[in-house]
Amino acid sequence: MPKVSQLRLCVGTSWLAPVVATLMVLSSLSAAGQVVPSAAWSPNILQQLRQIQRAALEDDYAYQQTAHLTDNIGPRLAGSPQAAAAVEYVADELSKLGLEVSLEKVTVPHWVRGEEHAELVAYPGQVPGTQQKIVVAALASLNNATSAEGVTAEIVVVNSFDELTALPREKVAGKIVVFNYPFDQRMAVAGFALAAYGDAVAYREKGRAAAARQGAVAALVRSAGGANFRLVHTGETGYDPKLPSIPAGCITAEDAELMARLAAQGPVRLHLVLTPKMLPDLTSYNVIADLKGSEHPEQVVIVSGHLDSWDLGTGAIDDAAGVAVAMETAQLLKQLHLQPKRTIRVVAWMAEEVGIFGGKAYAKQHADDIGKHFAAIETDLGAGHPVGINVAGDETVVNILQPVADVLQTSGAGDVRLSDETGADILPLTVAGVPTFSPIQDVRKYFDYHHSAADTLDKIDPRELRENAAVVSVLAYALATMNAELPRKPLPVPDWLK
Amino acid sequence: MPKVSQLRLCVGTSWLAPVVATLMVLSSLSAAGQVVPSAAWSPNILQQLRQIQRAALEDDYAYQQTAHLTDNIGPRLAGSPQAAAAVEYVADELSKLGLEVSLEKVTVPHWVRGEEHAELVAYPGQVPGTQQKIVVAALASLNNATSAEGVTAEIVVVNSFDELTALPREKVAGKIVVFNYPFDQRMAVAGFALAAYGDAVAYREKGRAAAARQGAVAALVRSAGGANFRLVHTGETGYDPKLPSIPAGCITAEDAELMARLAAQGPVRLHLVLTPKMLPDLTSYNVIADLKGSEHPEQVVIVSGHLDSWDLGTGAIDDAAGVAVAMETAQLLKQLHLQPKRTIRVVAWMAEEVGIFGGKAYAKQHADDIGKHFAAIETDLGAGHPVGINVAGDETVVNILQPVADVLQTSGAGDVRLSDETGADILPLTVAGVPTFSPIQDVRKYFDYHHSAADTLDKIDPRELRENAAVVSVLAYALATMNAELPRKPLPVPDWLK
Repeated sequence: MPKVSQLRLCVGTSWLAPVVATLMVLSSLSAAGQVVPSAAWSPNILQQLRQIQRAALEDDYAYQQTAHLTDNIGPRLAGSPQAAAAVEYVADELSKLGLEVSLEKVTVPHWVRGEEHAELVAYPGQVPGTQQKIVVAALASLNNATSAEGVTAEIVVVNSFDELTALPREKVAGKIVVFNYPFDQRMAVAGFALAAYGDAVAYREKGRAAAARQGAVAALVRSAGGANFRLVHTGETGYDPKLPSIPAGCITAEDAELMARLAAQGPVRLHLVLTPKMLPDLTSYNVIADLKGSEHPEQVVIVSGHLDSWDLGTGAIDDAAGVAVAMETAQLLKQLHLQPKRTIRVVAWMAEEVGIFGGKAYAKQHADDIGKHFAAIETDLGAGHPVGINVAGDETVVNILQPVADVLQTSGAGDVRLSDETGADILPLTVAGVPTFSPIQDVRKYFDYHHSAADTLDKIDPRELRENAAVVSVLAYALATMNAELPRKPLPVPDWLK
Repeated sequence: MPKVSQLRLCVGTSWLAPVVATLMVLSSLSAAGQVVPSAAWSPNILQQLRQIQRAALEDDYAYQQTAHLTDNIGPRLAGSPQAAAAVEYVADELSKLGLEVSLEKVTVPHWVRGEEHAELVAYPGQVPGTQQKIVVAALASLNNATSAEGVTAEIVVVNSFDELTALPREKVAGKIVVFNYPFDQRMAVAGFALAAYGDAVAYREKGRAAAARQGAVAALVRSAGGANFRLVHTGETGYDPKLPSIPAGCITAEDAELMARLAAQGPVRLHLVLTPKMLPDLTSYNVIADLKGSEHPEQVVIVSGHLDSWDLGTGAIDDAAGVAVAMETAQLLKQLHLQPKRTIRVVAWMAEEVGIFGGKAYAKQHADDIGKHFAAIETDLGAGHPVGINVAGDETVVNILQPVADVLQTSGAGDVRLSDETGADILPLTVAGVPTFSPIQDVRKYFDYHHSAADTLDKIDPRELRENAAVVSVLAYALATMNAELPRKPLPVPDWLK
């Protein structure tokens, strides 16, 4: 999570253009008539939505799934044995529920963390014979390792890209660039966490290339997270084959500030060891599980999260919770003996973190039937209290969903907003015109834990997870039973997805 | 900090008994007359107190000292080169201010951290070929290392001492005991942080012995801290030569809960490596720096903090800040050309963390002149906003200090309370009847960082540090200039100090 964090590990493909062209046609067809919200769901269906909501708010299946994925299986980095085990586990669980399960191939990068440590070896006021420890973790990318002995060089600390580019090249060449751009925690707490993350994560994504362009020998990036507990937030960093492949790591807020203060006093030299490896690509899978529709089985409503995680924590909020909430949707409908009119497709996406490989593979594999995708939902911003539904696509969908929002309002989740942040894995569908959705969640604390060793099960409040399950399951069933089409509106394709 | 965390590394001495006897006599003499608060300070002195307060609230000397101790010198574990460098640095700085500086010998234990890591190697639902990482740090004590290869054993998780002792010995023998007693963060935030810490730290102090008594092969203790960011809080643990010396480590809240959940499902085996060493004792020093009094130079008012720290962070809140505030007191009086009537003695205590060695050595070395110690102040609970003054000793001191509190009230620190928590290093003086003091600080966040890698300079708000300097410097000057004696009341000697 989320798409702002994603840079491609490899060169883009041109699969999307024909998909969009096809969808433009479908879109104009489906948007032909004005939808009257009150007619979209019968009183009987609305009653079923309330029944699903009540059941969701009392059910612990999603929490149990999250616990198994995180506690028993553990970190699920794409390409790892745990990621493979998670595919098998989720497929088995969804089969047990009676869904039609298939595994769809995804070729994934196989990045493995190596040794990683860093020490300040020379600095003003240093006590002879001592060093200061810098907590570091490698960022995932191609060719971002030091030698086994590591690199030792003077650091140059900058607060922004502008500060870096304003420096003459000789002030940077041969040095280790430290990007000390802080995540704006007050902005996050004030309700703009995604914007705060977007600002900060730009350095993780583009800092390596910016430093290489100026001749640096390595780049270290202050973690894009809000809680300062000597915690590194790992993630992916960009790879540009036209630039030297310098090693790149993430460091804690504390150590970034320490280096800034020391470097202001005089020369500071750092020893850095990062030995991650990019092994040959592997075959992994998106887990696809269909709860067949009674009237339009060929029409699909996706409900999803991503199954892979980073490797420092156990990936509870990012994104075992999202997968578990999607699984819970199927479980609740089975438990309540409710069959939707359209097919509800539970998807556990693979390899989101390292470049949305699962989401892109799905869109490519289903290029010919994207028109049959009625809607898609993803949960990938943790498990905080939900206050409503994000809608990506045509703005009229917001009004159409009002009766569903009215049901969800009884548990505090009655807001519906237009947003382009419904989920990275479903973005290829979003841009192709499929109406997509996500719960609007309280994400004020999300970036305190995200991508760090502290993303563990205890960060999930079981009650809030149930609230998310209520939103997603009610919304999925509502979409899969509505007596109307949804208008489709293809969106511009962002550069990184082209 | 604080004394509840302290267990002796070695057998107690009987130095305290004659000191207390001597002081009982002095105490009865000095408490002969009733002190009238309004007469204790002339209008001129009260004006000087206001002058000191204003200067303190605008001065950055304490922050600069804290920064040098933490950023440039770094972690200052007793016996380390950094601790030795800190002694030299503080002595030099206080000499520069014109104080009479001496170093008083303290024999300190020399504990060094070794390799430390832990992995769950077998557990329910384990993915073949994978393990789960447990973040661990050794606790400081004698003989608490595993072999280089480590120990591998099944874990037994308990929530309390009672749960452990209720288990039959065969359920514990040969296993690794995991104490999963949580620090009560809501209690801390509600204003009872020391009580919350006292409850939790009992497991760090006594857990090792309790586990050894039941035949365990190692003990792991959930960190006594309030912020759950996969952070270990190190510290000292008890050593009982009558029990087997089993290795003991601290683990994160997250990992303690993970092990509790997994162990509830079935057998869990842990591989634990901890290779700290206790090297031969070293000679270190308390830094003693006198600003001589004009009328009663033989009477001493101590103002102090402890110079050593734990090794994971840089010891900013624990306790560079306390030392810096004491240094600031001398700096302000010199800057303002104010000479106290009694001698103000700045003390930077050595080896508090590993057993209050500096404080105990001082009381022993000064056993014959403790009667000349008019008062003692210590700051050892961080640098949070102060709201007043803690008083240990005779309750009438609270009223006597009212005019000083009235001055401090203008910066929000006008409360005076009786407390037995004025500081671990000055506790030997407190129990001997010396009136002792500390700022009453906002410690709601103190135990989020204390003893962890996140105890770094950025945790100190420069404004709040200045507020603490204002309280301590005003109080020190008030005590060193007052026209009255303070009643002395020896307190019971706690077991750990005997």
